[in-house]
Amino acid sequence: MVVGSIPVWESDGITKILLCRRAIEPRYGYWTLPAGFMENKETTGEAASRETDEEAGADIQRHALFAILNVPHVHQVHLFYRATLLNLNYAAGTESLEVKLFTEQEIPWEDIAFPTVSETLRLFFADHARVKAGGSYQVHEHDITRPMRSSE
Amino acid sequence: MVVGSIPVWESDGITKILLCRRAIEPRYGYWTLPAGFMENKETTGEAASRETDEEAGADIQRHALFAILNVPHVHQVHLFYRATLLNLNYAAGTESLEVKLFTEQEIPWEDIAFPTVSETLRLFFADHARVKAGGSYQVHEHDITRPMRSSE
Ligand SMILES: [Zn+2]
Ligand SMILES: [Zn+2]
Repeated sequence: MVVGSIPVWESDGITKILLCRRAIEPRYGYWTLPAGFMENKETTGEAASRETDEEAGADIQRHALFAILNVPHVHQVHLFYRATLLNLNYAAGTESLEVKLFTEQEIPWEDIAFPTVSETLRLFFADHARVKAGGSYQVHEHDITRPMRSSE
Repeated sequence: MVVGSIPVWESDGITKILLCRRAIEPRYGYWTLPAGFMENKETTGEAASRETDEEAGADIQRHALFAILNVPHVHQVHLFYRATLLNLNYAAGTESLEVKLFTEQEIPWEDIAFPTVSETLRLFFADHARVKAGGSYQVHEHDITRPMRSSE
């Protein structure tokens, strides 16, 4: 299982999300939310915080589970937690080329590493707009099916 | 990851849950919700339905994810989905000695196979009471830590 966080920075009414540009394959050079495989004897929440520290050097306060995404054709389940970024002392870890905050408009949608990450970002900004209008965050469960290729 | 369902049967205002008595170790003879390990190329939801069919021969309509329970000292994560039992044609599969419906009062709390199952049942009946009072089901995330033994 892959577990990660959505580190949110709110300042002057502007919402930004912390993304990492991958320094490793697969998808070297593409942007992702901090996430990785669970290790022994940790909970899913602990794994999300550990990966956020390792890949983005980021201090977060972790909130509720936000998304569970099944990717059955690669035998994976990805979980993402909402999180508050506590300060701006983040720094790229060894698996990241750079780490940077993005508004919704600035997100490099064409250069996101994995479909689970773009889906989670889309769901997050949609919920965030509803929360601003008085709603609340949901837990989202979606299946990511194999993209159709013209050659298939 | 272990995935299962909470098969709910509602009739005449009485709510019952379908449990299976285990025909396999560990915890032979103890009661559990239908659940098991994910297999290749299925989603968490598909795994929950498959295990419910295999262990309880039960036809369900699967609803939202209800509980995610971390059991870090055995490196496990358990997910349970709420489900509606569609008919009474259930029957013990090869891994079950018997399959039976229980009201909250009838649940054999002392003979439940795993702490994740008793926790899920407790959370379900608590939410169910809130739903009857106009509330809604939540998604619950809890960590099950190693029980303290007097010998430890
Ligand atoms: Zn959703
Ligand atoms: Zn809870």
